[in-house]
Amino acid sequence: MATNITPRAENYSQWYLDVIAAGQLADHAPVKGCMVIRPTGYALWEEIQAVLDRRFKETGHVNAYFPLLIPQSFITKEAEHVEGFAPELAVVTRAGGKELEEPLVIRPTSETVIGHMYSQWISSWRDLPLLINQWANVMRWEMRTRMFLRTSEFLWQEGHTAHETPQEAEEETLKMLDVYREFLEGHLAMPVLAGRKTEREKFPGADRTYCVEALMQDKKALQAGTSHNLGQNFSKAFDITFLDRANERLHAHTTSWGVSTRLIGGLLMTHSDDDGLVLPPRIAPVKAVIIPLFKNDEEKALVLPFAEQVKTALGGCLDPLKVRMDTRYDQRPAERYFHWIQQGVPLRLEVGPRDVAGGQVCAVRRDTRAKAMIGLDDLGREIPALLEQMQADLYAKALAFRQANTHLVDTYEEFKQVLTEKGGYILAHWNGSEEVEARIKEETKATIRLVPLENTPLPQAAGPGRCMVTGEPSPGRVVFALAY
Amino acid sequence: MATNITPRAENYSQWYLDVIAAGQLADHAPVKGCMVIRPTGYALWEEIQAVLDRRFKETGHVNAYFPLLIPQSFITKEAEHVEGFAPELAVVTRAGGKELEEPLVIRPTSETVIGHMYSQWISSWRDLPLLINQWANVMRWEMRTRMFLRTSEFLWQEGHTAHETPQEAEEETLKMLDVYREFLEGHLAMPVLAGRKTEREKFPGADRTYCVEALMQDKKALQAGTSHNLGQNFSKAFDITFLDRANERLHAHTTSWGVSTRLIGGLLMTHSDDDGLVLPPRIAPVKAVIIPLFKNDEEKALVLPFAEQVKTALGGCLDPLKVRMDTRYDQRPAERYFHWIQQGVPLRLEVGPRDVAGGQVCAVRRDTRAKAMIGLDDLGREIPALLEQMQADLYAKALAFRQANTHLVDTYEEFKQVLTEKGGYILAHWNGSEEVEARIKEETKATIRLVPLENTPLPQAAGPGRCMVTGEPSPGRVVFALAY
Repeated sequence: MATNITPRAENYSQWYLDVIAAGQLADHAPVKGCMVIRPTGYALWEEIQAVLDRRFKETGHVNAYFPLLIPQSFITKEAEHVEGFAPELAVVTRAGGKELEEPLVIRPTSETVIGHMYSQWISSWRDLPLLINQWANVMRWEMRTRMFLRTSEFLWQEGHTAHETPQEAEEETLKMLDVYREFLEGHLAMPVLAGRKTEREKFPGADRTYCVEALMQDKKALQAGTSHNLGQNFSKAFDITFLDRANERLHAHTTSWGVSTRLIGGLLMTHSDDDGLVLPPRIAPVKAVIIPLFKNDEEKALVLPFAEQVKTALGGCLDPLKVRMDTRYDQRPAERYFHWIQQGVPLRLEVGPRDVAGGQVCAVRRDTRAKAMIGLDDLGREIPALLEQMQADLYAKALAFRQANTHLVDTYEEFKQVLTEKGGYILAHWNGSEEVEARIKEETKATIRLVPLENTPLPQAAGPGRCMVTGEPSPGRVVFALAY
Repeated sequence: MATNITPRAENYSQWYLDVIAAGQLADHAPVKGCMVIRPTGYALWEEIQAVLDRRFKETGHVNAYFPLLIPQSFITKEAEHVEGFAPELAVVTRAGGKELEEPLVIRPTSETVIGHMYSQWISSWRDLPLLINQWANVMRWEMRTRMFLRTSEFLWQEGHTAHETPQEAEEETLKMLDVYREFLEGHLAMPVLAGRKTEREKFPGADRTYCVEALMQDKKALQAGTSHNLGQNFSKAFDITFLDRANERLHAHTTSWGVSTRLIGGLLMTHSDDDGLVLPPRIAPVKAVIIPLFKNDEEKALVLPFAEQVKTALGGCLDPLKVRMDTRYDQRPAERYFHWIQQGVPLRLEVGPRDVAGGQVCAVRRDTRAKAMIGLDDLGREIPALLEQMQADLYAKALAFRQANTHLVDTYEEFKQVLTEKGGYILAHWNGSEEVEARIKEETKATIRLVPLENTPLPQAAGPGRCMVTGEPSPGRVVFALAY
């Protein structure tokens, strides 16, 4: 039976959990705040990994693996870093039946242990740039958790690079931010705003943090990826030095950047509907499912061979491993449909006796439910086109949603009103002070999601004005929102 | 400069560590017993993952991710399991700034937490078989560690399946053992013996453990992969039950199977030589490196365009990402050669001015150092053939080594003598008692690596005889060896 899903309008949070349960994406682990990523959910992570890993390699990076456990003393070497992460650490105090002399923390992120290794591997400018990525699990003990979006353990990738000059480090930081933007927009069909975090919101230990932010259907923002220019903070804390071309010993400039399984939560909240998961075709682990329909053995003998022909045709234009045949013949058609709807499969291809007679299938899109009759000989051309159309439509729909939910305000009163009544992104002027930023957050829960960059597609935010709170000068608007 | 490598004959253990250091495969982590897998080593793991993951999927398995932390109480639910793993556990006692009410262990393996989840996911025979694999890090606190072979943290895959009948579980256990055998022999060029472990050597909690064992160059055996039929031990401990086709509630039959980063150590010790790493072409992350050689700008202008033509030709017959161009023109040729020799790259293609004149390259095999002149137009045909020949030769060499180091003995005196003087596999009769097995281990350090299966390629082991220690009847010889 199809699992019941609470409508978004009724209870958005419950809807989110229901979509996860109905799609069998994840489950609660026995340890509070941790999750099990079930095969359907993990297949999404594998798709994300495959595309990003290729992009990382094309941009010159290699993968490596650094240890899970970090001496507690490492975390304290960078002052801001320890302040940011100390409250969230999980600590191993006993191992092999003995108390440890120095407690070990489970990595919340790996700047410290990687910094320690880089100091041993880097000695000359010839060793730079060092461009390494790691796919790993990390642990940040969370009080309020939410599947995919905030769990104590999560999976991610963390890139860590070291460079000769500040310019190169900044270029790398922005290049990887752009890799994330392209990936989110091109594959996940999630339009994002790329920008810079404020000092208050930046990564503990970074000089500058850049981010990509996406707007969810409940009009809250989600930080989908971050890229940090760490300057010389970690190279000084961990003594990462090199002899430069003039034979002078200098500290390297480092960066780090990451995205996590949180992307799956963002993907879900961007496209899914009250019937469950909706997946953009390019990232869908199963792109099409064939559903043979028959009422008796006579029809079965007609339908199954034709369904096999359909499968062969699809295997010619799509990865055969990404096409499924539904064989749960003992269930009613509606139940069979709902199973695949809730798993977010982009196309359902119904094949009944009348379709066989007409030499065609009925293709039903997951997002719009639009039906199209497609002849067997046309499948190789029409199915990929239909999938690409769906990909484009999902992106366009999400972009229109963001545009409809981006508001300009000039006064703090108006800000509070729009935030409460409309939500979404609010572009407003701010005097640049952490104090005002903190006050706005305390009074409204809204945070500055980003300070637009030159290429952030927000022309309406450009140009000077006056801080909505203090009336002081501001060089341009920043983006506020309630956020996950 | 080429890193010095201690010859095998002088100090085998040091040779092993030197090959790892020279090939930049791994490094010691700051936490004792843990390692950092460097890019060259990790690329090997990625190759291993890619091939095995595809095989797992082709045999019907899907991937998922289960949590790192397991409640300590879970480990104690299966009596043999806790006995086996308790001494090696790393325990988190503090998290988020507080002492935990129940300590959490870092998974040493995931049967328990997966059993807990399976009990929730499985309710009917329709949910079976459940065929899930996980790629993950695990932790077993070790006193005596050795890079890749035995480290406190290691990377592995663990398959966990549940079935309706004991027959199906046994079939799955043997099927995955065979996947490992095929992979080891076909890709890693490591001939293995597949067999059953004795009761004493089996996995804590299994009914039966099967293994593939490989012989290293120091004539010690290495357990390269294991596949366990867990019977109903875990399904009873974790209450994994289902309604069968007759509507009766039964406990499922489960299996688990895994290989780890230990394979990299085994690969190294099977093929490498006193100059460093030797990699079978099918698993080598870099299959060929082009080395342009010139003494002046005039020669450079001649050589580089030709080297680019060579690269294009190789890109046509090999994955272009797996071909490298050596550009360290400021170093002496010998140093440039040694860099790639120590990284185990199967083919080195030298291109000097005379080669350009002759329209050819000099291809040098890493294993035999055999040189072959190959014309530019023939590269697309000859290079893949050369790589396949090298793959076959490495396997044949390792197989001949194993055959030359497999001995039949009939008395315990002879056993001790052969073990001390020759090493290798010793096929001997044993009465099947754990007591005798323990005595042999205590007196000689040799263990029973496996009890041959019907299809184990050891015809000389078949047929009954008398236990070399007690003279009692034995149905067939078993394989003894000193082991890692």
